[in-house]
Amino acid sequence: MQRFGILTKAQVEKIHETSLRILEQIGLDFDYPSALEVLKKKGAKVDGRRVFFTPGFVEEQIKKAPAEFTLYARNPEHNVVIGGRNTVFAPGYGAPFVTDLENGRRQATLKDFENFVKLTGASANQDLLSGTVVEPTDVPPEIRHAKMLYASVKYSDKCFMGSTMGARAARECFQMAAILFGSRAELASSPVIFGIVGALTPLKYDTRMLGALMEYAAAGQPQVISSLAIAGATGPVTLAGNLALQNAEVLAGIVLAQLVREGTPVIFGGVSAIAELRNGTLSIGSPEMAINTAATAQMAHYYKLPVRSGGAVCDAKSPGAQASYESMMNLLMARLSGVNFVLHGAGILESYNCMSYEKFIIDDEMCGMVKRIKRGYEVNPDSLAFDIIKDVGPGGYFLDKDHTFEHFRTEFHRPQLSNRDDFVSWQESGSPESIETANKKYKQILETHVPPELPADVDKDLLKFIEKLA
Amino acid sequence: MQRFGILTKAQVEKIHETSLRILEQIGLDFDYPSALEVLKKKGAKVDGRRVFFTPGFVEEQIKKAPAEFTLYARNPEHNVVIGGRNTVFAPGYGAPFVTDLENGRRQATLKDFENFVKLTGASANQDLLSGTVVEPTDVPPEIRHAKMLYASVKYSDKCFMGSTMGARAARECFQMAAILFGSRAELASSPVIFGIVGALTPLKYDTRMLGALMEYAAAGQPQVISSLAIAGATGPVTLAGNLALQNAEVLAGIVLAQLVREGTPVIFGGVSAIAELRNGTLSIGSPEMAINTAATAQMAHYYKLPVRSGGAVCDAKSPGAQASYESMMNLLMARLSGVNFVLHGAGILESYNCMSYEKFIIDDEMCGMVKRIKRGYEVNPDSLAFDIIKDVGPGGYFLDKDHTFEHFRTEFHRPQLSNRDDFVSWQESGSPESIETANKKYKQILETHVPPELPADVDKDLLKFIEKLA
Repeated sequence: MQRFGILTKAQVEKIHETSLRILEQIGLDFDYPSALEVLKKKGAKVDGRRVFFTPGFVEEQIKKAPAEFTLYARNPEHNVVIGGRNTVFAPGYGAPFVTDLENGRRQATLKDFENFVKLTGASANQDLLSGTVVEPTDVPPEIRHAKMLYASVKYSDKCFMGSTMGARAARECFQMAAILFGSRAELASSPVIFGIVGALTPLKYDTRMLGALMEYAAAGQPQVISSLAIAGATGPVTLAGNLALQNAEVLAGIVLAQLVREGTPVIFGGVSAIAELRNGTLSIGSPEMAINTAATAQMAHYYKLPVRSGGAVCDAKSPGAQASYESMMNLLMARLSGVNFVLHGAGILESYNCMSYEKFIIDDEMCGMVKRIKRGYEVNPDSLAFDIIKDVGPGGYFLDKDHTFEHFRTEFHRPQLSNRDDFVSWQESGSPESIETANKKYKQILETHVPPELPADVDKDLLKFIEKLA
Repeated sequence: MQRFGILTKAQVEKIHETSLRILEQIGLDFDYPSALEVLKKKGAKVDGRRVFFTPGFVEEQIKKAPAEFTLYARNPEHNVVIGGRNTVFAPGYGAPFVTDLENGRRQATLKDFENFVKLTGASANQDLLSGTVVEPTDVPPEIRHAKMLYASVKYSDKCFMGSTMGARAARECFQMAAILFGSRAELASSPVIFGIVGALTPLKYDTRMLGALMEYAAAGQPQVISSLAIAGATGPVTLAGNLALQNAEVLAGIVLAQLVREGTPVIFGGVSAIAELRNGTLSIGSPEMAINTAATAQMAHYYKLPVRSGGAVCDAKSPGAQASYESMMNLLMARLSGVNFVLHGAGILESYNCMSYEKFIIDDEMCGMVKRIKRGYEVNPDSLAFDIIKDVGPGGYFLDKDHTFEHFRTEFHRPQLSNRDDFVSWQESGSPESIETANKKYKQILETHVPPELPADVDKDLLKFIEKLA
């Protein structure tokens, strides 16, 4: 397959050059003494909190990051390869609110968190768990990361994410991962947990994120290093400048990670979007978001790094038409541009503020469709079917051919939600809207959910660990 | 921009070769004596209604069709270039039913047809009129084509389509076009009307379509030559074979058009999809539809011909979530694959059976988004904004910069429908769903619509022409 590319080769170079100029002449503020120390020691120019990077220094460090790596799950069937031609999906991340058809919109709780872990575990299309799939606002912030990690491994055996809310939270997540998988030394050679670190745009990294960034790198655990520059607000209004700014920030983070530990796996992340200037809100359902996704993928490919983008993201407030066209635009663009790790693959409403149970199911269907598109064509004598076409001939019919029965299950995507009845049948079945079908479906998954086995001693040790934190 | 490509180069060759084998060894049935006569005279092997084409003969004819052409509107601002890097949109085509929020689903009438012409005329995103935007079921079939053409030119000054319901209907449409634009001889050098011709899959062309195909070619008016092979029903279940079948049918049609008039403009059309085998329905909201769109575009590019695909098409029965994710998948895929003419760009529900007033508006917003994506990046010193980034520096803000005010109107897509308010503001404004906003919007467009001027004598002559037909 030939990926979609929105930038010409010359434009990619121009963006790259401009971000190198930003890094050399403007610099970034690093609000973390240990980071400043490492950067200074390894050769960056440091002036107070401001750090300047020469082009050669940046290019040298970026090269050390691997183009592809494996993340290990406790069920090996759920190991995922991140990079290359692969695309994996994880659901929404970070929403403080949840909503569903019966109860409406409310603050998210640990119960919601657990539910979304179960839904993710049950999905054939979400490849790994999102870290903070919702913010469990009923759990004290000091132990929230530990409670989330516990729920992640208790209710699913897919790969999971850890906290990046500072160095301590990150370390505690690694300790819990070590209870599950063995020693921390082993973890470094086969990573089992990953996190997402973001710049504080424009041109800053804060204490918390830098603490986490350095811990993940030191432990050899992968991390997404991401930037969200809001064109017109925290970045230039022109998309090219906004992209150059995003690029400079991500490169700076990756440089630091490589300085902490050469070859530590990173994912190049970019989710820049625009400000809706009429009311000052962030718009992630805008076409400019999809444009940025395509360009971010190209920049990451230029650096030979795995790439992360947003997924089924939107500005809509309910899971109707707007939510779906914005989400499909972003999901399909991510895949066709060759994004490797699609975060927010399901559930997000309101520009990241809310997770919808029904939208999770609707978006999950979209992820399945996008995955079918990714599989593309198999072209061989059997699939070209010349003999069948000859046998059927002009005016004939293929429905009763053995070839049809042998292939339709693998050849066709099987919808979990989309209704393909004719109008009359649909009407006779009560004219169901997607949101109603999705409502039934998510409840049914939760009702019948059986958690994967977690060894009793591991379970006990994890609970004991959390108890000590509180 | 680098187009998305779903097939490798070798796979494109394999599809091409297989379709040439189909054309040479299986052949197609042509149900029209004049077509058989021309084909025989020019060197094809004809046996009864069955026609066989050698590879050399096919390749020779295909080369004669232009890669790009202009279609002329009566308002020159609405001329459209079809081919090259261009993508143009026209709304739905052929639905016998219409629906809207207040009146529900019903048979379409001429009044609906006129309404959709007005909505298309008023849209900034639909570049030309669709031919049979809905079937005016209250008009007798014998004069339906003339009534539709009259409504098209009466209520809009964009490019329009003519009938392909047989030779006579096509000719009468050209006569009406000549009343509007001048003599038929002039039309051949600057085409003003185009039609869409489809094969009768598998491997047939019927009398009506062949009559139209030959008339359009003889008059030098462009035509889409299209195939819809339903994998598992009218085509092989395997997508590669279905594509090869589609390809053979389209090539055969194009060969005939070139034999009738060398260099006559054609658009390579392919809208093959799959059968939903559970209930025997056609599925055009399936990911396999989008896969076929991408492959069709590649085949057309291989032949250096303009290409047509479907647009905002879906299997959904109402303009909610499913309608939107299916439509956006198909629209975005068309654009990213480099499709030139996107038919069904707005309004279609129920696998082509119904046009929705509200979905027209929703899809039109999607077309605007896709067009913004097509514009991509402008990369130059001003848009890279290095000086602005330097001026703002780490932790600063871009909102109050002149640069922001100078650029946001052109840089950002301006939504006509999408709601970007925060949740509270949205709730305070009555929690509007897209379908409700769209309902208000279409009614407002129709209420304030002012038809473009049509010279009184032309109007009179057109009406007189129709009167003579009845």
